[in-house]
Amino acid sequence: MLVSPRNPLNIGAAARAMANFGFAHLAVVAPFEEHWREAKSAVQAEGLLHSALQTQDLAEAVADCTLVLGTGTLTHRKAEQPVVSLPSLGPQVRRAVELGGRVALVFGSEKRGLTREDLSLCHALVEIPTDPHQPSMNLGQAVAVCLYELARPLGSLSSSHHAERTGAASSAATSGALDRLADLMFATMTAANYSPRAMRAANQHDLRLLLRRLNLSASDIRRGMGLFRRILRAFDPGGLKSGNRNS
Amino acid sequence: MLVSPRNPLNIGAAARAMANFGFAHLAVVAPFEEHWREAKSAVQAEGLLHSALQTQDLAEAVADCTLVLGTGTLTHRKAEQPVVSLPSLGPQVRRAVELGGRVALVFGSEKRGLTREDLSLCHALVEIPTDPHQPSMNLGQAVAVCLYELARPLGSLSSSHHAERTGAASSAATSGALDRLADLMFATMTAANYSPRAMRAANQHDLRLLLRRLNLSASDIRRGMGLFRRILRAFDPGGLKSGNRNS
Repeated sequence: MLVSPRNPLNIGAAARAMANFGFAHLAVVAPFEEHWREAKSAVQAEGLLHSALQTQDLAEAVADCTLVLGTGTLTHRKAEQPVVSLPSLGPQVRRAVELGGRVALVFGSEKRGLTREDLSLCHALVEIPTDPHQPSMNLGQAVAVCLYELARPLGSLSSSHHAERTGAASSAATSGALDRLADLMFATMTAANYSPRAMRAANQHDLRLLLRRLNLSASDIRRGMGLFRRILRAFDPGGLKSGNRNS
Repeated sequence: MLVSPRNPLNIGAAARAMANFGFAHLAVVAPFEEHWREAKSAVQAEGLLHSALQTQDLAEAVADCTLVLGTGTLTHRKAEQPVVSLPSLGPQVRRAVELGGRVALVFGSEKRGLTREDLSLCHALVEIPTDPHQPSMNLGQAVAVCLYELARPLGSLSSSHHAERTGAASSAATSGALDRLADLMFATMTAANYSPRAMRAANQHDLRLLLRRLNLSASDIRRGMGLFRRILRAFDPGGLKSGNRNS
Protein backbone atom coordinates (compact mmCIF):
# COMPACT_ATOMS: atom_id res chain seq x y z
CA MET A 1 0.00 0.00 0.00
CA LEU A 2 1.28 3.40 -0.96
CA VAL A 3 0.20 6.38 1.12
CA SER A 4 0.26 9.70 -0.75
CA PRO A 5 2.90 8.73 -3.28
CA ARG A 6 4.10 11.73 -5.28
CA ASN A 7 6.34 10.52 -8.07
CA PRO A 8 4.58 8.65 -10.90
CA LEU A 9 7.83 6.84 -11.66
CA ASN A 10 7.91 5.49 -8.10
CA ILE A 11 4.31 4.35 -8.34
CA GLY A 12 5.15 2.52 -11.54
CA ALA A 13 8.30 1.06 -10.00
CA ALA A 14 6.35 -0.22 -6.99
CA ALA A 15 3.84 -1.89 -9.31
CA ARG A 16 6.62 -3.44 -11.36
CA ALA A 17 8.29 -4.87 -8.26
CA MET A 18 4.93 -6.33 -7.20
CA ALA A 19 4.59 -8.04 -10.57
CA ASN A 20 8.22 -9.25 -10.39
CA PHE A 21 7.63 -10.94 -7.06
CA GLY A 22 4.09 -12.20 -7.62
CA PHE A 23 2.03 -9.76 -5.55
CA ALA A 24 -1.30 -8.68 -6.98
CA HIS A 25 -3.17 -6.34 -4.63
CA LEU A 26 -2.07 -2.73 -4.68
CA ALA A 27 -3.84 -0.08 -2.62
CA VAL A 28 -3.15 3.62 -3.03
CA VAL A 29 -4.19 5.97 -0.27
CA ALA A 30 -4.85 9.67 -0.91
CA PRO A 31 -2.66 9.89 -4.01
CA PHE A 32 -2.00 13.23 -5.68
CA GLU A 33 -4.60 12.84 -8.43
CA GLU A 34 -2.45 14.17 -11.22
CA HIS A 35 0.48 11.88 -10.42
CA TRP A 36 -1.77 8.90 -9.96
CA ARG A 37 -3.38 9.53 -13.34
CA GLU A 38 0.03 9.93 -14.92
CA ALA A 39 1.29 6.67 -13.41
CA LYS A 40 -1.76 4.80 -14.66
CA SER A 41 -1.45 6.22 -18.15
CA ALA A 42 2.18 5.22 -18.55
CA VAL A 43 2.68 2.87 -21.49
CA GLN A 44 4.17 0.11 -19.42
CA ALA A 45 1.69 0.46 -16.54
CA GLU A 46 0.90 -2.84 -14.87
CA GLY A 47 -2.63 -4.20 -14.82
CA LEU A 48 -2.41 -3.97 -11.05
CA LEU A 49 -2.21 -0.18 -11.24
CA HIS A 50 -5.57 -0.18 -12.96
CA SER A 51 -7.15 -2.60 -10.53
CA ALA A 52 -5.64 -0.89 -7.48
CA LEU A 53 -7.84 -0.10 -4.53
CA GLN A 54 -8.01 3.65 -3.99
CA THR A 55 -9.04 5.09 -0.64
CA GLN A 56 -8.87 8.43 1.09
CA ASP A 57 -7.34 7.15 4.29
CA LEU A 58 -5.20 4.28 5.41
CA ALA A 59 -7.73 2.94 7.94
CA GLU A 60 -10.10 2.16 5.07
CA ALA A 61 -7.39 0.54 2.97
CA VAL A 62 -6.26 -1.81 5.75
CA ALA A 63 -9.72 -2.50 7.14
CA ASP A 64 -9.71 -6.18 6.12
CA CYS A 65 -6.06 -6.83 6.96
CA THR A 66 -4.96 -8.79 10.00
CA LEU A 67 -1.33 -7.71 10.00
CA VAL A 68 -0.36 -4.18 9.01
CA LEU A 69 3.34 -3.48 8.63
CA GLY A 70 4.63 0.06 8.33
CA THR A 71 7.94 0.85 6.70
CA GLY A 72 10.42 3.66 7.09
CA THR A 73 13.57 4.72 8.82
CA LEU A 74 13.44 5.47 12.50
CA THR A 75 16.24 7.97 12.67
CA HIS A 76 13.97 10.86 13.53
CA ARG A 77 11.46 9.31 15.85
CA LYS A 78 10.99 6.67 18.45
CA ALA A 79 8.87 3.71 17.43
CA GLU A 80 5.68 3.18 19.38
CA GLN A 81 5.30 -0.42 18.29
CA PRO A 82 7.59 -3.40 17.80
CA VAL A 83 10.29 -2.91 15.19
CA VAL A 84 11.13 -5.91 13.05
CA SER A 85 14.23 -6.02 10.91
CA LEU A 86 13.29 -6.94 7.33
CA PRO A 87 15.43 -10.11 7.18
CA SER A 88 13.59 -11.55 10.18
CA LEU A 89 10.11 -10.65 8.99
CA GLY A 90 9.35 -13.92 7.25
CA PRO A 91 8.03 -16.08 10.12
CA GLN A 92 5.59 -13.45 11.38
CA VAL A 93 4.14 -12.88 7.91
CA ARG A 94 3.89 -16.59 7.17
CA ARG A 95 2.06 -17.20 10.43
CA ALA A 96 -0.42 -14.45 9.64
CA VAL A 97 -1.05 -15.87 6.18
CA GLU A 98 -1.36 -19.42 7.48
CA LEU A 99 -4.01 -18.24 9.91
CA GLY A 100 -6.02 -17.03 6.94
CA GLY A 101 -5.16 -13.38 7.41
CA ARG A 102 -4.25 -10.63 5.00
CA VAL A 103 -1.00 -8.78 5.37
CA ALA A 104 -0.51 -5.16 4.33
CA LEU A 105 2.89 -3.61 3.77
CA VAL A 106 2.53 0.17 3.97
CA PHE A 107 4.89 2.73 2.43
CA GLY A 108 4.61 6.45 3.15
CA SER A 109 5.15 9.35 0.81
CA GLU A 110 8.62 10.00 -0.57
CA LYS A 111 9.07 13.19 1.40
CA ARG A 112 7.66 12.47 4.81
CA GLY A 113 7.16 8.74 5.16
CA LEU A 114 4.21 7.61 7.24
CA THR A 115 2.49 10.01 9.60
CA ARG A 116 2.06 9.27 13.28
CA GLU A 117 -1.60 8.54 12.58
CA ASP A 118 -0.72 6.12 9.78
CA LEU A 119 1.71 4.40 12.11
CA SER A 120 -0.96 4.01 14.77
CA LEU A 121 -2.67 1.58 12.37
CA CYS A 122 0.41 -0.60 12.13
CA HIS A 123 1.03 -3.71 14.22
CA ALA A 124 4.75 -3.45 13.69
CA LEU A 125 7.33 -1.41 11.85
CA VAL A 126 9.65 -2.99 9.34
CA GLU A 127 13.13 -1.62 9.21
CA ILE A 128 15.34 -2.21 6.19
CA PRO A 129 18.88 -2.56 7.51
CA THR A 130 20.54 0.29 5.62
CA ASP A 131 23.80 2.11 6.20
CA PRO A 132 23.47 4.76 8.94
CA HIS A 133 25.22 7.26 6.66
CA GLN A 134 22.56 6.88 3.97
CA PRO A 135 19.52 5.24 5.56
CA SER A 136 16.78 6.60 3.31
CA MET A 137 15.87 4.45 0.34
CA ASN A 138 14.14 5.37 -2.88
CA LEU A 139 10.48 4.30 -2.68
CA GLY A 140 10.54 1.96 -5.67
CA GLN A 141 13.71 0.30 -4.44
CA ALA A 142 12.39 -0.07 -0.89
CA VAL A 143 9.27 -1.78 -2.25
CA ALA A 144 11.42 -4.13 -4.35
CA VAL A 145 13.64 -5.07 -1.43
CA CYS A 146 10.71 -5.72 0.92
CA LEU A 147 8.81 -7.83 -1.60
CA TYR A 148 11.95 -9.76 -2.48
CA GLU A 149 12.35 -10.60 1.21
CA LEU A 150 8.70 -11.60 1.61
CA ALA A 151 8.84 -13.80 -1.49
CA ARG A 152 12.26 -15.11 -0.49
CA PRO A 153 11.74 -18.28 1.53
CA LEU A 154 8.67 -19.84 0.02
CA GLY A 155 8.60 -18.51 -3.47
CA SER A 156 5.74 -16.16 -4.18
CA LEU A 157 3.63 -15.02 -1.28
CA SER A 158 0.83 -12.99 -2.74
CA SER A 159 -2.33 -11.88 -1.08
CA SER A 160 -4.02 -14.49 -3.19
CA HIS A 161 -2.70 -16.93 -0.60
CA HIS A 162 -5.37 -15.29 1.52
CA ALA A 163 -6.42 -18.70 2.74
CA GLU A 164 -9.95 -19.97 2.90
CA ARG A 165 -9.55 -20.81 6.56
CA THR A 166 -11.27 -17.68 7.77
CA GLY A 167 -13.91 -18.47 10.32
CA ALA A 168 -11.52 -20.60 12.34
CA ALA A 169 -11.80 -19.79 16.02
CA SER A 170 -8.27 -18.43 16.04
CA SER A 171 -8.57 -16.14 13.01
CA ALA A 172 -6.87 -12.82 13.64
CA ALA A 173 -8.84 -9.62 14.03
CA THR A 174 -8.88 -7.36 10.99
CA SER A 175 -7.72 -3.78 11.23
CA GLY A 176 -11.28 -2.58 10.67
CA ALA A 177 -12.58 -4.71 13.54
CA LEU A 178 -9.85 -3.35 15.81
CA ASP A 179 -10.90 0.16 14.89
CA ARG A 180 -14.57 -0.55 15.57
CA LEU A 181 -13.64 -1.87 18.99
CA ALA A 182 -11.34 1.12 19.60
CA ASP A 183 -14.14 3.53 18.64
CA LEU A 184 -16.57 1.81 20.96
CA MET A 185 -14.09 1.74 23.82
CA PHE A 186 -13.28 5.36 23.24
CA ALA A 187 -16.95 6.30 23.26
CA THR A 188 -17.21 4.43 26.54
CA MET A 189 -14.21 6.25 27.97
CA THR A 190 -15.67 9.55 26.90
CA ALA A 191 -19.04 8.70 28.39
CA ALA A 192 -17.28 7.73 31.59
CA ASN A 193 -15.32 11.01 31.57
CA TYR A 194 -12.16 8.96 31.64
CA SER A 195 -10.10 11.46 29.66
CA PRO A 196 -9.68 15.15 30.29
CA ARG A 197 -10.67 16.82 27.03
CA ALA A 198 -7.08 17.85 26.26
CA MET A 199 -5.88 14.27 26.52
CA ARG A 200 -8.51 12.67 24.29
CA ALA A 201 -6.60 12.58 21.02
CA ALA A 202 -3.52 11.16 22.74
CA ASN A 203 -5.58 8.54 24.53
CA GLN A 204 -7.33 7.54 21.32
CA HIS A 205 -3.95 7.14 19.65
CA ASP A 206 -2.60 5.04 22.53
CA LEU A 207 -5.71 2.87 22.47
CA ARG A 208 -5.20 2.02 18.81
CA LEU A 209 -1.61 1.04 19.50
CA LEU A 210 -2.59 -0.98 22.55
CA LEU A 211 -5.22 -3.00 20.70
CA ARG A 212 -2.72 -3.82 17.98
CA ARG A 213 -0.21 -5.12 20.52
CA LEU A 214 -2.68 -7.60 21.99
CA ASN A 215 -2.83 -9.96 19.03
CA LEU A 216 -6.61 -10.21 19.30
CA SER A 217 -8.66 -12.79 17.44
CA ALA A 218 -11.92 -12.10 15.67
CA SER A 219 -13.83 -13.70 18.52
CA ASP A 220 -11.94 -11.58 21.09
CA ILE A 221 -13.24 -8.59 19.18
CA ARG A 222 -16.81 -9.89 19.24
CA ARG A 223 -16.59 -10.38 23.00
CA GLY A 224 -15.03 -6.98 23.52
CA MET A 225 -17.68 -5.29 21.40
CA GLY A 226 -20.42 -7.03 23.41
CA LEU A 227 -18.85 -5.95 26.67
CA PHE A 228 -18.34 -2.29 25.78
CA ARG A 229 -21.76 -1.98 24.15
CA ARG A 230 -23.22 -3.17 27.39
CA ILE A 231 -21.16 -0.74 29.47
CA LEU A 232 -21.97 2.14 27.18
CA ARG A 233 -25.67 1.30 27.36
CA ALA A 234 -25.46 1.35 31.13
CA PHE A 235 -24.18 4.92 30.96
CA ASP A 236 -26.81 6.06 28.54
CA PRO A 237 -29.72 3.64 28.29
CA GLY A 238 -31.50 5.53 25.49
CA GLY A 239 -28.47 6.46 23.45
CA LEU A 240 -27.64 3.24 21.73
CA LYS A 241 -30.35 2.08 19.42
CA SER A 242 -28.90 -1.05 17.97
CA GLY A 243 -27.75 -4.46 18.81
CA ASN A 244 -27.14 -7.05 21.43
CA ARG A 245 -29.86 -6.19 23.88
CA ASN A 246 -29.88 -9.79 25.01
CA SER A 247 -26.15 -10.35 25.09
CA MET B 1 29.38 -2.71 -12.08
CA LEU B 2 27.08 -1.34 -14.72
CA VAL B 3 27.71 -2.27 -18.34
CA SER B 4 26.40 0.26 -20.87
CA PRO B 5 23.65 1.66 -18.65
CA ARG B 6 21.31 3.93 -20.61
CA ASN B 7 18.96 5.65 -18.20
CA PRO B 8 20.55 8.30 -15.95
CA LEU B 9 17.81 7.69 -13.39
CA ASN B 10 18.81 4.04 -13.19
CA ILE B 11 22.47 4.94 -12.79
CA GLY B 12 21.53 7.26 -9.93
CA ALA B 13 19.26 4.62 -8.41
CA ALA B 14 22.05 2.04 -8.51
CA ALA B 15 24.40 4.47 -6.77
CA ARG B 16 21.79 5.25 -4.15
CA ALA B 17 21.22 1.57 -3.40
CA MET B 18 24.99 1.13 -3.03
CA ALA B 19 25.09 3.96 -0.50
CA ASN B 20 22.05 2.50 1.30
CA PHE B 21 23.72 -0.86 1.77
CA GLY B 22 27.26 0.32 2.38
CA PHE B 23 28.96 -0.44 -0.91
CA ALA B 24 31.52 2.04 -2.16
CA HIS B 25 33.12 0.94 -5.42
CA LEU B 26 31.12 1.55 -8.56
CA ALA B 27 32.48 0.76 -12.00
CA VAL B 28 30.77 1.84 -15.18
CA VAL B 29 31.67 0.11 -18.41
CA ALA B 30 31.18 1.78 -21.79
CA PRO B 31 28.42 4.13 -20.64
CA PHE B 32 26.57 6.32 -23.10
CA GLU B 33 28.55 9.48 -22.45
CA GLU B 34 25.62 11.84 -22.42
CA HIS B 35 23.63 9.75 -19.95
CA TRP B 36 26.63 9.19 -17.74
CA ARG B 37 27.30 12.94 -17.64
CA GLU B 38 23.68 13.60 -16.86
CA ALA B 39 23.66 11.06 -14.02
CA LYS B 40 26.77 12.60 -12.50
CA SER B 41 25.41 16.12 -12.72
CA ALA B 42 22.15 15.27 -10.94
CA VAL B 43 21.72 17.30 -7.76
CA GLN B 44 21.49 14.29 -5.51
CA ALA B 45 24.31 12.35 -7.19
CA GLU B 46 26.28 10.23 -4.78
CA GLY B 47 29.99 10.78 -4.25
CA LEU B 48 30.47 7.29 -5.54
CA LEU B 49 29.23 8.33 -9.00
CA HIS B 50 32.04 10.84 -9.15
CA SER B 51 34.68 8.43 -7.94
CA ALA B 52 33.42 5.58 -10.13
CA LEU B 53 35.88 3.61 -12.20
CA GLN B 54 35.14 4.06 -15.89
CA THR B 55 36.41 1.57 -18.45
CA GLN B 56 35.71 0.70 -22.05
CA ASP B 57 35.27 -3.01 -21.50
CA LEU B 58 34.25 -5.31 -18.72
CA ALA B 59 37.50 -7.30 -18.74
CA GLU B 60 39.36 -4.18 -17.62
CA ALA B 61 36.81 -3.33 -14.94
CA VAL B 62 36.93 -6.78 -13.34
CA ALA B 63 40.67 -7.31 -13.80
CA ASP B 64 41.44 -7.23 -10.06
CA CYS B 65 38.34 -9.18 -8.98
CA THR B 66 38.46 -12.79 -7.84
CA LEU B 67 34.75 -13.52 -8.14
CA VAL B 68 32.69 -12.00 -10.94
CA LEU B 69 28.94 -12.49 -10.75
CA GLY B 70 26.71 -11.71 -13.71
CA THR B 71 23.05 -10.90 -13.30
CA GLY B 72 20.06 -11.25 -15.53
CA THR B 73 17.16 -13.46 -16.42
CA LEU B 74 17.82 -16.66 -18.25
CA THR B 75 14.55 -16.97 -20.07
CA HIS B 76 16.09 -16.45 -23.48
CA ARG B 77 19.37 -18.30 -23.22
CA LYS B 78 21.07 -21.25 -21.65
CA ALA B 79 23.61 -20.45 -18.99
CA GLU B 80 27.16 -21.54 -19.73
CA GLN B 81 28.27 -21.30 -16.11
CA PRO B 82 26.79 -22.18 -12.72
CA VAL B 83 23.57 -20.36 -11.87
CA VAL B 84 23.15 -19.30 -8.24
CA SER B 85 19.82 -18.17 -6.88
CA LEU B 86 20.23 -14.81 -5.15
CA PRO B 87 19.02 -16.02 -1.72
CA SER B 88 21.75 -18.66 -1.64
CA LEU B 89 24.55 -16.41 -2.83
CA GLY B 90 25.79 -15.37 0.62
CA PRO B 91 28.19 -18.20 1.51
CA GLN B 92 30.05 -18.07 -1.81
CA VAL B 93 30.55 -14.32 -1.60
CA ARG B 94 31.61 -14.44 2.05
CA ARG B 95 34.18 -17.14 1.30
CA ALA B 96 35.63 -15.07 -1.53
CA VAL B 97 35.89 -12.01 0.70
CA GLU B 98 37.38 -13.98 3.56
CA LEU B 99 40.07 -15.23 1.22
CA GLY B 100 41.02 -11.64 0.57
CA GLY B 101 39.34 -11.43 -2.80
CA ARG B 102 37.26 -8.77 -4.49
CA VAL B 103 33.79 -9.56 -5.69
CA ALA B 104 32.13 -7.85 -8.66
CA LEU B 105 28.40 -7.87 -9.28
CA VAL B 106 27.76 -7.05 -12.92
CA PHE B 107 24.54 -5.65 -14.39
CA GLY B 108 23.97 -5.33 -18.11
CA SER B 109 22.20 -2.60 -20.02
CA GLU B 110 18.49 -2.09 -19.51
CA LYS B 111 17.59 -3.28 -22.99
CA ARG B 112 19.83 -6.24 -23.62
CA GLY B 113 21.38 -7.33 -20.34
CA LEU B 114 24.87 -8.76 -20.50
CA THR B 115 26.34 -9.92 -23.79
CA ARG B 116 27.69 -13.40 -24.27
CA GLU B 117 31.20 -11.93 -24.13
CA ASP B 118 30.44 -10.14 -20.85
CA LEU B 119 29.08 -13.38 -19.45
CA SER B 120 32.25 -15.25 -20.42
CA LEU B 121 34.02 -13.14 -17.78
CA CYS B 122 31.64 -14.28 -15.05
CA HIS B 123 32.33 -17.13 -12.65
CA ALA B 124 28.63 -17.58 -12.01
CA LEU B 125 25.28 -16.09 -12.86
CA VAL B 126 23.01 -14.75 -10.17
CA GLU B 127 19.33 -15.24 -10.71
CA ILE B 128 16.80 -13.16 -8.80
CA PRO B 129 13.80 -15.42 -8.17
CA THR B 130 11.10 -13.43 -9.93
CA ASP B 131 7.65 -14.38 -11.13
CA PRO B 132 7.81 -16.21 -14.48
CA HIS B 133 5.02 -13.96 -15.77
CA GLN B 134 7.09 -10.83 -15.14
CA PRO B 135 10.70 -11.88 -14.72
CA SER B 136 12.46 -8.72 -15.86
CA MET B 137 13.30 -6.22 -13.14
CA ASN B 138 14.05 -2.54 -13.39
CA LEU B 139 17.82 -2.01 -13.19
CA GLY B 140 17.79 0.21 -10.10
CA GLN B 141 15.50 -2.21 -8.28
CA ALA B 142 17.56 -5.24 -9.26
CA VAL B 143 20.68 -3.55 -7.91
CA ALA B 144 18.87 -2.74 -4.65
CA VAL B 145 17.61 -6.29 -4.19
CA CYS B 146 21.02 -7.85 -4.88
CA LEU B 147 22.88 -5.51 -2.55
CA TYR B 148 20.25 -5.99 0.16
CA GLU B 149 20.85 -9.73 -0.08
CA LEU B 150 24.64 -9.39 -0.01
CA ALA B 151 24.47 -7.06 3.00
CA ARG B 152 21.80 -9.22 4.62
CA PRO B 153 23.54 -11.72 6.86
CA LEU B 154 26.56 -9.86 8.16
CA GLY B 155 25.53 -6.25 7.92
CA SER B 156 27.46 -4.27 5.37
CA LEU B 157 29.75 -6.11 3.04
CA SER B 158 31.51 -3.51 0.99
CA SER B 159 34.54 -3.92 -1.15
CA SER B 160 36.39 -2.10 1.61
CA HIS B 161 36.28 -5.44 3.39
CA HIS B 162 38.78 -6.35 0.70
CA ALA B 163 40.92 -8.01 3.35
CA GLU B 164 44.60 -7.47 3.81
CA ARG B 165 45.26 -11.17 3.59
CA THR B 166 46.28 -11.05 -0.05
CA GLY B 167 49.52 -12.88 -0.61
CA ALA B 168 48.26 -15.92 1.25
CA ALA B 169 49.10 -19.07 -0.70
CA SER B 170 45.42 -19.75 -1.28
CA SER B 171 44.44 -16.29 -2.57
CA ALA B 172 42.10 -16.58 -5.51
CA ALA B 173 43.16 -15.62 -9.00
CA THR B 174 41.94 -12.25 -10.23
CA SER B 175 39.94 -11.93 -13.41
CA GLY B 176 42.86 -10.12 -15.05
CA ALA B 177 45.24 -12.95 -14.18
CA LEU B 178 42.80 -15.49 -15.59
CA ASP B 179 42.65 -13.50 -18.80
CA ARG B 180 46.43 -13.28 -19.08
CA LEU B 181 46.64 -17.03 -18.69
CA ALA B 182 43.81 -17.52 -21.19
CA ASP B 183 45.58 -15.28 -23.71
CA LEU B 184 48.81 -17.17 -23.28
CA MET B 185 47.08 -20.53 -23.57
CA PHE B 186 45.25 -19.35 -26.63
CA ALA B 187 48.47 -18.13 -28.23
CA THR B 188 49.91 -21.55 -27.51
CA MET B 189 46.90 -23.28 -29.03
CA THR B 190 47.17 -21.10 -32.11
CA ALA B 191 50.89 -21.73 -32.41
CA ALA B 192 50.18 -25.44 -32.10
CA ASN B 193 47.47 -25.19 -34.77
CA TYR B 194 45.04 -26.61 -32.27
CA SER B 195 42.00 -24.76 -33.60
CA PRO B 196 40.75 -24.59 -37.15
CA ARG B 197 40.55 -20.88 -37.92
CA ALA B 198 36.74 -20.94 -37.96
CA MET B 199 36.60 -22.33 -34.44
CA ARG B 200 39.04 -19.93 -32.81
CA ALA B 201 36.58 -17.42 -31.38
CA ALA B 202 34.42 -20.21 -29.96
CA ASN B 203 37.44 -21.94 -28.46
CA GLN B 204 38.67 -18.71 -26.90
CA HIS B 205 35.25 -18.18 -25.37
CA ASP B 206 35.14 -21.73 -24.00
CA LEU B 207 38.63 -21.35 -22.57
CA ARG B 208 37.61 -18.28 -20.57
CA LEU B 209 34.64 -20.17 -19.16
CA LEU B 210 36.74 -23.21 -18.38
CA LEU B 211 39.37 -21.25 -16.47
CA ARG B 212 36.67 -19.60 -14.38
CA ARG B 213 35.19 -22.96 -13.43
CA LEU B 214 38.48 -24.24 -12.07
CA ASN B 215 38.64 -22.01 -9.01
CA LEU B 216 42.34 -21.28 -9.60
CA SER B 217 44.54 -19.59 -7.03
CA ALA B 218 47.06 -16.86 -7.79
CA SER B 219 49.89 -19.36 -7.54
CA ASP B 220 48.09 -21.76 -9.90
CA ILE B 221 48.11 -18.91 -12.40
CA ARG B 222 51.82 -18.29 -11.89
CA ARG B 223 52.53 -21.96 -12.49
CA GLY B 224 50.26 -22.06 -15.54
CA MET B 225 51.87 -18.94 -17.01
CA GLY B 226 55.32 -20.46 -16.53
CA LEU B 227 54.25 -23.67 -18.21
CA PHE B 228 52.60 -22.11 -21.23
CA ARG B 229 55.39 -19.57 -21.73
CA ARG B 230 57.78 -22.46 -21.88
CA ILE B 231 55.64 -24.39 -24.35
CA LEU B 232 55.14 -21.34 -26.51
CA ARG B 233 58.87 -20.67 -26.52
CA ALA B 234 59.47 -24.21 -27.62
CA PHE B 235 57.27 -23.57 -30.67
CA ASP B 236 58.95 -20.30 -31.52
CA PRO B 237 62.26 -19.83 -29.76
CA GLY B 238 62.85 -16.30 -31.02
CA GLY B 239 59.30 -15.01 -30.70
CA LEU B 240 58.93 -14.40 -27.00
CA LYS B 241 61.24 -11.73 -25.72
CA SER B 242 60.37 -11.54 -22.09
CA GLY B 243 60.31 -13.45 -18.91
CA ASN B 244 61.03 -16.65 -17.10
CA ARG B 245 63.90 -17.97 -19.15
CA ASN B 246 65.05 -19.89 -16.16
CA SER B 247 61.70 -21.17 -14.98
